[in-house]
Amino acid sequence: MKNKFDVVVIGGGIIGCSIAYYLAKEKLNVAVMESQQIGNKATGAAAGMLGAHSECNDLEIFYPFARDSQKTYIQVQEEIKELSGIDIEHRKGGLLKLAYTESEKRSLNEILALPTVKWYRAEDVKKEIPGISPDIIGAAYIEDDVTVLPTSVCHGFSRSAQLFGTSLFEFTTVISIQKNGSSYLINTTKGIFEANYVVVANGVWSSSFFKELGLEHQLTPVKGECLSVYSENISLKHTLFHDHSCIVPRNNGRLVIGATQIVNEWNEKPTLSGVESLIAKAKTMLPAVTDMKLESFWAGLRPQTVDQRPFIGPHPNDENILFATGHYRNGILLAPATAKMIRDFILKKEIRKDWVEAFKINRSCGTSTSVTTC
Amino acid sequence: MKNKFDVVVIGGGIIGCSIAYYLAKEKLNVAVMESQQIGNKATGAAAGMLGAHSECNDLEIFYPFARDSQKTYIQVQEEIKELSGIDIEHRKGGLLKLAYTESEKRSLNEILALPTVKWYRAEDVKKEIPGISPDIIGAAYIEDDVTVLPTSVCHGFSRSAQLFGTSLFEFTTVISIQKNGSSYLINTTKGIFEANYVVVANGVWSSSFFKELGLEHQLTPVKGECLSVYSENISLKHTLFHDHSCIVPRNNGRLVIGATQIVNEWNEKPTLSGVESLIAKAKTMLPAVTDMKLESFWAGLRPQTVDQRPFIGPHPNDENILFATGHYRNGILLAPATAKMIRDFILKKEIRKDWVEAFKINRSCGTSTSVTTC
Amino acid sequence: MKNKFDVVVIGGGIIGCSIAYYLAKEKLNVAVMESQQIGNKATGAAAGMLGAHSECNDLEIFYPFARDSQKTYIQVQEEIKELSGIDIEHRKGGLLKLAYTESEKRSLNEILALPTVKWYRAEDVKKEIPGISPDIIGAAYIEDDVTVLPTSVCHGFSRSAQLFGTSLFEFTTVISIQKNGSSYLINTTKGIFEANYVVVANGVWSSSFFKELGLEHQLTPVKGECLSVYSENISLKHTLFHDHSCIVPRNNGRLVIGATQIVNEWNEKPTLSGVESLIAKAKTMLPAVTDMKLESFWAGLRPQTVDQRPFIGPHPNDENILFATGHYRNGILLAPATAKMIRDFILKKEIRKDWVEAFKINRSCGTSTSVTTC
Amino acid sequence: MKNKFDVVVIGGGIIGCSIAYYLAKEKLNVAVMESQQIGNKATGAAAGMLGAHSECNDLEIFYPFARDSQKTYIQVQEEIKELSGIDIEHRKGGLLKLAYTESEKRSLNEILALPTVKWYRAEDVKKEIPGISPDIIGAAYIEDDVTVLPTSVCHGFSRSAQLFGTSLFEFTTVISIQKNGSSYLINTTKGIFEANYVVVANGVWSSSFFKELGLEHQLTPVKGECLSVYSENISLKHTLFHDHSCIVPRNNGRLVIGATQIVNEWNEKPTLSGVESLIAKAKTMLPAVTDMKLESFWAGLRPQTVDQRPFIGPHPNDENILFATGHYRNGILLAPATAKMIRDFILKKEIRKDWVEAFKINRSCGTSTSVTTC
Repeated sequence: MKNKFDVVVIGGGIIGCSIAYYLAKEKLNVAVMESQQIGNKATGAAAGMLGAHSECNDLEIFYPFARDSQKTYIQVQEEIKELSGIDIEHRKGGLLKLAYTESEKRSLNEILALPTVKWYRAEDVKKEIPGISPDIIGAAYIEDDVTVLPTSVCHGFSRSAQLFGTSLFEFTTVISIQKNGSSYLINTTKGIFEANYVVVANGVWSSSFFKELGLEHQLTPVKGECLSVYSENISLKHTLFHDHSCIVPRNNGRLVIGATQIVNEWNEKPTLSGVESLIAKAKTMLPAVTDMKLESFWAGLRPQTVDQRPFIGPHPNDENILFATGHYRNGILLAPATAKMIRDFILKKEIRKDWVEAFKINRSCGTSTSVTTC
Repeated sequence: MKNKFDVVVIGGGIIGCSIAYYLAKEKLNVAVMESQQIGNKATGAAAGMLGAHSECNDLEIFYPFARDSQKTYIQVQEEIKELSGIDIEHRKGGLLKLAYTESEKRSLNEILALPTVKWYRAEDVKKEIPGISPDIIGAAYIEDDVTVLPTSVCHGFSRSAQLFGTSLFEFTTVISIQKNGSSYLINTTKGIFEANYVVVANGVWSSSFFKELGLEHQLTPVKGECLSVYSENISLKHTLFHDHSCIVPRNNGRLVIGATQIVNEWNEKPTLSGVESLIAKAKTMLPAVTDMKLESFWAGLRPQTVDQRPFIGPHPNDENILFATGHYRNGILLAPATAKMIRDFILKKEIRKDWVEAFKINRSCGTSTSVTTC
Repeated sequence: MKNKFDVVVIGGGIIGCSIAYYLAKEKLNVAVMESQQIGNKATGAAAGMLGAHSECNDLEIFYPFARDSQKTYIQVQEEIKELSGIDIEHRKGGLLKLAYTESEKRSLNEILALPTVKWYRAEDVKKEIPGISPDIIGAAYIEDDVTVLPTSVCHGFSRSAQLFGTSLFEFTTVISIQKNGSSYLINTTKGIFEANYVVVANGVWSSSFFKELGLEHQLTPVKGECLSVYSENISLKHTLFHDHSCIVPRNNGRLVIGATQIVNEWNEKPTLSGVESLIAKAKTMLPAVTDMKLESFWAGLRPQTVDQRPFIGPHPNDENILFATGHYRNGILLAPATAKMIRDFILKKEIRKDWVEAFKINRSCGTSTSVTTC
Repeated sequence: MKNKFDVVVIGGGIIGCSIAYYLAKEKLNVAVMESQQIGNKATGAAAGMLGAHSECNDLEIFYPFARDSQKTYIQVQEEIKELSGIDIEHRKGGLLKLAYTESEKRSLNEILALPTVKWYRAEDVKKEIPGISPDIIGAAYIEDDVTVLPTSVCHGFSRSAQLFGTSLFEFTTVISIQKNGSSYLINTTKGIFEANYVVVANGVWSSSFFKELGLEHQLTPVKGECLSVYSENISLKHTLFHDHSCIVPRNNGRLVIGATQIVNEWNEKPTLSGVESLIAKAKTMLPAVTDMKLESFWAGLRPQTVDQRPFIGPHPNDENILFATGHYRNGILLAPATAKMIRDFILKKEIRKDWVEAFKINRSCGTSTSVTTC
């Protein structure tokens, strides 16, 4: 077993695997340490919306970063298919962000100003989606906010990275990280590994490495529960979105209903109250959904930072330790752009200054009333 | 493959398998024809309440029959364990039929008059079950309305019957039944079988044989959906019952929440509206249930007759064709008594006259305003 | 509920749903009667190989028919995606029919003569598929024998047909078919339907309608068991095929290992001996498969005729009753061509004579030593 | 949330939960920290054999300890049923340790000398178990080596402990343990807890705490894979055992086939080679098992020490840190005796000297050729 690497990535979710892929393409010698199985935690629980517009509340920083990531997926799809044979289900159809009140409509104004977003009147939406709620007053249609199948993206990155030489260690828990001269010793259940760079990318569980590495930053788990439903009689081509909930059609004709937001909850199993609230939300968008058959249910933990922006960048005191976590609701969307940024940090390439500042570890977390360290 | 039998039973649910068992014990040569797998349809979907009292709305006929069946289960448990090694999970703890209003309390008066039923005041129920709804005014406690695990009862009957010589044919669809002199030819996907007696016992699907055998009787499917939930922090020892819904604790600590009643529905898969209504009902009994984790979900079809009593007895024009179906909400409870009655018809033993009349095929279906043939 | 149709199709597998689709496109008013759920029996159990070449042992009749069907899938994929949003996973990569001995290589000579089939020497195969068995002497590479995801094809046909007006009745068992003047009464668990044409397309269960409709033809169930396996470290792009077994890569990176052939077996559940033989066969093709993790397992029943050709055509004495069944190992491959042929019978269009003769109900079944009615 | 406890137990498997139960009964204020869900790792993967005799290769130390634990289960069953309503499926029937050769028979001589073990000749075994392998020459019958359902034991302990006041923290990872004056700070993903005693009882994952707490001891994961199978036609009342493999009947009539032994394997998912070897082993005991249907499959990691004895006792340099791990193949069997021993360490009660010596952390590991620290 090889145990010396250029880079050890901790975490085999979509963030860790995309980083491994982009580094391995540059001929770096990479290992991924995953305590369970590839893509089985938050990644496997995500609905897969690439909501650069629909999840956006900041056109200055978040939007261009998210948009870059969203566009990168077109190339990711082709490369991964070619290399690994995996289809990430990059799916046309776009997203309708529904408005039920004038106030909701107004809140869409900012994105409606973008050339990529169009307003559809209620009658147009109803024509396109016969079962849509009669209560909507219209919807913002965003053609580019498409969806992918998150586990397939993650497996695609993982296998493609391996084809470029990456080593993958599943069922391998990292116990500690120790400085050892100019390199690091990564102590795991499978023995000790050595690396020049360590990238911490294991979602909400990255917290424990913050503390170990002398940082005070916190990640809060925000549990998200989902349902998968089916019906032979209902076809949906567009993602429906309202009030942080969505109904996402899959390539096999099933619909995914997601997702709850239970703050500070570590339990990864859906509860009855979660299921109840998902059904209630889905009904307000597509009333006929109540006739659909339940297929399965699951949950995952989103890693949330104080200002809800990810941590992407080096440790304040040690540039050979990098973090890529805290992606909250947008881990799938932001994976390619995050990976490219981590790659560029390691390769000392230029990176957009405002992104570096916005996502660095020791940034200030401004709110209307206070500014603190994140 | 043996193809001549004293009795061919159509249907390998709990009714068919209990009949096979009671006939085989009398040294009759029996075959069971099951189109899918033993106990996988309505039997496998049942919560397993032996609600002789709680499901009773007729102390004259239904209650003594149900009570006889309920008592027989004590013996069934021992025999099946001894013969097949299967534990039917005949589980102590009894049932609390909850009352939220004076009117609901009054409706319990009839069963409260029985020596087997006691009234518990709200404070007593709350002491026994800390999480019970604060809105109850009390409950009828029925110690003898215990529960069993329906699939285990059915498998236990099936295997014990086989140990007494019964032949079991799974994945065998009966296509037609034809008179052949003094016997019958049962034409199936696995070939033709011959029998002196045929017992039709395949639940709501018995309808098709009614028609084929010249009868006009109808069975209506009443779909019932269930959930199984768990939580390390909640223990329940008693079944809770209210408004046709129940929460049943299992031997492994899980709770079963049952069951919806969707009349004239053939679809055997749970829908979101079913799940939603189960959660709503369970909350009214045990509010903390919403914190429990969802484990699984399923549905089955209860066979309902016009007067909601089962059909148990011979074809009006042919005493060698018998029916045992239409048990609606009480197939598990009534299986042993039904089987003994069918056994006694075939062996020409004496049977309680009022039961024969109440469950015969060509009875009149009285309602307050009309009397018709069932 | 509408109960009069131009055509009632019995069976909601891939054959029935493709027929409904091709008829509905011609503006016929169609209903599909499915006793369980769409695509859940043999269709859902199939690996999805479109083996026009690899399954071929008859270049005169079977091959052109199969090849036509295979080519039609290209169009099917586009139409279904456009109409229903379902992706049938028509997957490039082709198939390698492995040879381990000179005798096996010789048996490939006939198809190697076709322009669509190429011989790869062992070293070439090993370069392309590093984990391939070292014992092969080469393989026939068939680029056009691609795969689809059978359930998605079936759901895609079903939903697209509905968008063209087809009515779908799931959980609806057909009890009998009766002539009623110039039309038919189809008696089902959901009531009586009327149709001008009836198409019997419910796989091996079609047998019971043969008998009812006065025919002596038999269908034999040939059970096929499959496994799904996965491993982060193994990527496969081509289907491997040897001795009636295959390893099929899916779009999500999993491999399907199929399928056993248990003749005259109605049981639809995999046994340990089936699993054992699948593992043994897969090992001979891809030894590293034994390190892969088991994901799931299932089985289905192929409908086999005496001469292993399907029945496609009208009842010998009644051209308004048609059969489309008996597709044995090739139901997925042949679905589109079968559907077009049934469409053309109903629309009285011209059909290739040799196909009509080869697949007609009352054909002679020639073997080397005897000729009988199929 | 309470965060000060007398004892914090790390690990919510059967060892941790039984310890919590026995401590809570003594009115100690206990918390259990489980990183996932109660009983879901090695505990949930175990077959549940209480093989005090069949797993014994040491009559002096192991046997009396194991036998004490085995006998304790009788009381455990009653207490847990009474307290929590959970039935641990303590199941009569005993175990047959099969012999195929004279040499295998001789190796049974030691346990056959015990009054609790009897020799059955081949013809007697065949009479009792008609499907048994014709190749056996006899079997040791051990009436007291019964089975339990491990998850139910674990849930029963967990809930009963909670009824005695224990706090349970699921989905809570322990990051570090720090001395803090006379108590300990347990740093977890859910915050910091304080305790006077810490018990490390999380199976093979205890290794990481060894290192953190200054110990060099190693635990090796030995993966065990299992299958669950069923058949309506096969009933088994006794456990069959041969060559470290077993076939265990469950209360619901299913059989569990266990277990492989893959040394130094952290992957918790069954592979095809594991499944293959389980089928092969089961066939040698009960040939008809190959006709049984596969129901499910799973795996778990046994924690193995160098001398294959558990670690039960205090840290060599700190008596307030205790270990209860390394139970290898016998975690279920030894849970009650382990828990009583840990209780007695904490309560400073007398404990059998030879057990203390045999299971202490800093013992010598003798083999025929060398003596080292374990």
